[in-house]
Amino acid sequence: MRVIVDLCVVPLGVGVSVSPYIAACQREIEAAGLEHSMHAYGTNIEGGWDEVMAVIKRCHEVVHELGAPRITTTLKLGTRTDREQHMQDKVSSVETLLAAQRQGEDLA
Amino acid sequence: MRVIVDLCVVPLGVGVSVSPYIAACQREIEAAGLEHSMHAYGTNIEGGWDEVMAVIKRCHEVVHELGAPRITTTLKLGTRTDREQHMQDKVSSVETLLAAQRQGEDLA
Amino acid sequence: MRVIVDLCVVPLGVGVSVSPYIAACQREIEAAGLEHSMHAYGTNIEGGWDEVMAVIKRCHEVVHELGAPRITTTLKLGTRTDREQHMQDKVSSVETLLAAQRQGEDLA
Amino acid sequence: MRVIVDLCVVPLGVGVSVSPYIAACQREIEAAGLEHSMHAYGTNIEGGWDEVMAVIKRCHEVVHELGAPRITTTLKLGTRTDREQHMQDKVSSVETLLAAQRQGEDLA
Repeated sequence: MRVIVDLCVVPLGVGVSVSPYIAACQREIEAAGLEHSMHAYGTNIEGGWDEVMAVIKRCHEVVHELGAPRITTTLKLGTRTDREQHMQDKVSSVETLLAAQRQGEDLA
Repeated sequence: MRVIVDLCVVPLGVGVSVSPYIAACQREIEAAGLEHSMHAYGTNIEGGWDEVMAVIKRCHEVVHELGAPRITTTLKLGTRTDREQHMQDKVSSVETLLAAQRQGEDLA
Repeated sequence: MRVIVDLCVVPLGVGVSVSPYIAACQREIEAAGLEHSMHAYGTNIEGGWDEVMAVIKRCHEVVHELGAPRITTTLKLGTRTDREQHMQDKVSSVETLLAAQRQGEDLA
Repeated sequence: MRVIVDLCVVPLGVGVSVSPYIAACQREIEAAGLEHSMHAYGTNIEGGWDEVMAVIKRCHEVVHELGAPRITTTLKLGTRTDREQHMQDKVSSVETLLAAQRQGEDLA
């Protein structure tokens, strides 16, 4: 079972600057060799369910090791059995629709 | 590493009535013997990281087996290393504060 | 447009004990007169879209006023046009299914 | 009060292909003139609290108007009073850290 997730790890008890903790997570995701893409409020990761979940556990472990006594994570998880879909497909299918509609408006 | 999660599984492509799918998840959580509590927008589950994650994977599997071609789940995950905390503690600590403040107002 | 939400407000930069901030949010929700129910990882609130959103804004304002320099909130929002549904209905429909299935198993 | 959000609108009861509904939301966000960036599991939006919340309400309205009888949305909301921060700043601060660490490893 493949999964596309959106991961947002929030360390508590370490002040307001959380980027060192997020950077540590990014290194774990990179080390796992999983396809990923960071945005302003999380990171998309794609892969097998177990591989993706293992890296999310590693994120919690390293953020605690770096000194965060408490973590709250928000995670979205998408699976589908009807067809294969990759992260970029999801963005492309919306962008294609938007482009087609803009072209339709220009021709009108 | 213990975790308290809030799980909200949403099957897509099966119409608007999702309760049979949610009930199937509840049975998996009960079968796993994990402490849990359902609310109007999800289910709190508490336990070891691996046990909780295994049951969330089982939820996706059974919801697909029941016919849902696509699932999107929203999950909150809380871990802490500073002290042990259970689900009921989190609610109690807020309720105790609220009760103390109400009593303070009554005395004022 | 009515909405059922699940609200989880997380203050950053104030240490690991967040219950005073959550209690302040609870008082805002109560003051607004909206139906609500707290669980271990958030609070369900039900009402008109604008009323519910106004109280969520008030939560951010009071949590900042109490000294939190940064807040990250996770919010689930459910709306439907096919029929009226209340918070308790969502829990009841799943519990009814589970009870019927247990009874079926007992009779088998 | 400025806010950076991550918006993920999920229409229910319309099958598994949700991109036409997401495209309709994107057009509302663009029409509002708010800075935004789509990723594989949502859209980041930045602006004043009331402006951003108004466009999220419009998203629910247009998705219902397009025929979806039920919607569940997952929203992350970030506010801060300590300093101004934009969407790109959040990504840049993590990428700068990662680049510095890689350079340190190369020099080692």
